[in-house]
Amino acid sequence: MPYPHPNPHSRTRRGNHHRARFSVGTALLLLGLCLPAFAADPLPSWNDGAARTAIVDFVEKVTTPGAPGFVPEPERIAVFDNDGTLWSGQPMYVQLAFILDRVRALAPQHPEWKDKQPFKAALEGDLKALGASGPRGLAELTAATHAGMTSAEFETIVADWLKTARHPKYDRPYTELVYQPMLELLAYLRAHGFKTFIVSGGGIDFMRPWAEKVYGIPPEQVIGSSIEVKFEMRAGEPVLMREPEIRFIDDKAGKPVGIHFHIGRRPLAAFGNSDGDLQMLEYTTAAGTGPRFGLIVHHDDGLREVAYDRNSAFGKLDKALDAAKARGWTVVSMKEDWKTVFPPEQDAVR
Amino acid sequence: MPYPHPNPHSRTRRGNHHRARFSVGTALLLLGLCLPAFAADPLPSWNDGAARTAIVDFVEKVTTPGAPGFVPEPERIAVFDNDGTLWSGQPMYVQLAFILDRVRALAPQHPEWKDKQPFKAALEGDLKALGASGPRGLAELTAATHAGMTSAEFETIVADWLKTARHPKYDRPYTELVYQPMLELLAYLRAHGFKTFIVSGGGIDFMRPWAEKVYGIPPEQVIGSSIEVKFEMRAGEPVLMREPEIRFIDDKAGKPVGIHFHIGRRPLAAFGNSDGDLQMLEYTTAAGTGPRFGLIVHHDDGLREVAYDRNSAFGKLDKALDAAKARGWTVVSMKEDWKTVFPPEQDAVR
Repeated sequence: MPYPHPNPHSRTRRGNHHRARFSVGTALLLLGLCLPAFAADPLPSWNDGAARTAIVDFVEKVTTPGAPGFVPEPERIAVFDNDGTLWSGQPMYVQLAFILDRVRALAPQHPEWKDKQPFKAALEGDLKALGASGPRGLAELTAATHAGMTSAEFETIVADWLKTARHPKYDRPYTELVYQPMLELLAYLRAHGFKTFIVSGGGIDFMRPWAEKVYGIPPEQVIGSSIEVKFEMRAGEPVLMREPEIRFIDDKAGKPVGIHFHIGRRPLAAFGNSDGDLQMLEYTTAAGTGPRFGLIVHHDDGLREVAYDRNSAFGKLDKALDAAKARGWTVVSMKEDWKTVFPPEQDAVR
Repeated sequence: MPYPHPNPHSRTRRGNHHRARFSVGTALLLLGLCLPAFAADPLPSWNDGAARTAIVDFVEKVTTPGAPGFVPEPERIAVFDNDGTLWSGQPMYVQLAFILDRVRALAPQHPEWKDKQPFKAALEGDLKALGASGPRGLAELTAATHAGMTSAEFETIVADWLKTARHPKYDRPYTELVYQPMLELLAYLRAHGFKTFIVSGGGIDFMRPWAEKVYGIPPEQVIGSSIEVKFEMRAGEPVLMREPEIRFIDDKAGKPVGIHFHIGRRPLAAFGNSDGDLQMLEYTTAAGTGPRFGLIVHHDDGLREVAYDRNSAFGKLDKALDAAKARGWTVVSMKEDWKTVFPPEQDAVR
């Protein structure tokens, strides 16, 4: 963060007058304390263009004291979808890769699985048969892999898996396949007094073990889908047992509900990439609520990532793309707006 | 916490050596920036005694860098029950007074209520008949008064009610009947890097409209019981409609569950007053999790407030009082430990 250095040889009248009390050292200290925004470009991976300009203009509008759009810091809430918005959502959601790996790891204890759907499809990596098993099949796999242990045990299972699992195409840990421009955006918003939340259809307890290290988002700012947990005493000490029942689906019309219960105020800004984010974006940018910002990451970069929208099995973007035009949301072209997609390997957080 | 005041007349060698660059003025400035805790006693309404000492010792243990019990700031989570812990829970929970007032306000639109339980009991203020209607009766009253409007409309109803409602005994607004020593404790913990949360059996949407102003606790740090809300489009704009079904009861064994889903980490400290807080205190202070702190406010001051514990209809404290001894929780005697109970009228926040 190279701050502009005041020239130690220049002397203003005021500077001379107060030199005994406020030396150059003190001035540097005060600059550092009061003017962090003098830093280098906070969005270096964003090309100059309409998307970047819209982001910066919005942030300046709501954070400039005295300006008509000014919003006090406690109300600066920004919500981010996760799959396809902050990290890779192709060729399948990372949590589904986790489920398939867990089914394989647990299979020796369940010999019956190799002849029983949806487990058979999971063991064979047969995504088509898996798709045919529908939401019910997915719920069965989730119950078999996400329930039956304490919340602390599940946290360890997720963390251990992430240490060794690698993306099939990029051959890198999943936690490195986060979008560098979005990491910069998260940091930029936080530097301007925003609280950043994840609002994902993915499992809340699947994201929390790594979201703080990877995104700088603490567990209490992660909202997601969940299965039930139950308080129990085990040998005189309390644990939370994970139960095989769906508690909440934080997707589509569920996202504004998740936001309501976790945050309790309407966000100022929402960031998504698919129709699963439509209602969250509508809720955030509803008319008559003051300055608001909606943004959609459009995956149109088949060279550096994967190009998909209206017909994708994961992260389908159709209605929300039409709504973006009607409601004035910013649509990011990964191809045009992003200088880089993923962080360089050596800088990645593991 | 009377911090030792630095003696302005003492001069260390280092102090003399650097005098040209760091004058007394600068030193004061830096002190002000870095050591806000040098201020006056942060817990002026707490008498010297075991409870106060236990609080201060715990906070110093977990916040002193390099000390064996040191806990990094993001993990400093403190959870507070509300009714009877932060504000008055007698002669009935404030939310029940709200329900009774709302039933009266809505009665003209429901002539059938005057002959139908539990509404008849509510209209007549007959707490005994109300009690006889049980949890089912209370759920009916809650549905009739808390559902059928948008979340924004409900927020206004609560805020408007609090502007005029007064406590039957003290003849003061309910938001003034908060415990002054607990307000100081909240501020003291926050000054030491704690995030403070409410974890209450009361309604999450009943508390949020005023918790920030009264306690300094923002909506996203309020956890409570809830009814369902549903995302709907109304004239092309999204609203959240409140539905007459219970979603979550944040009481007893529900409190650790609420903490898990909202916060996602085990708190460092928990503060309660009744058996409804037992599991939250057990979960927070479980063995083998590092330094933890549990505290129970014991209402033993019949003169300045109300003395109640093992046999009270509201805020019964029985099992948790026994557990306090077994698990080493601090028990606050309102009579002995608190210099004052409520804030002075002129200072109260409305």
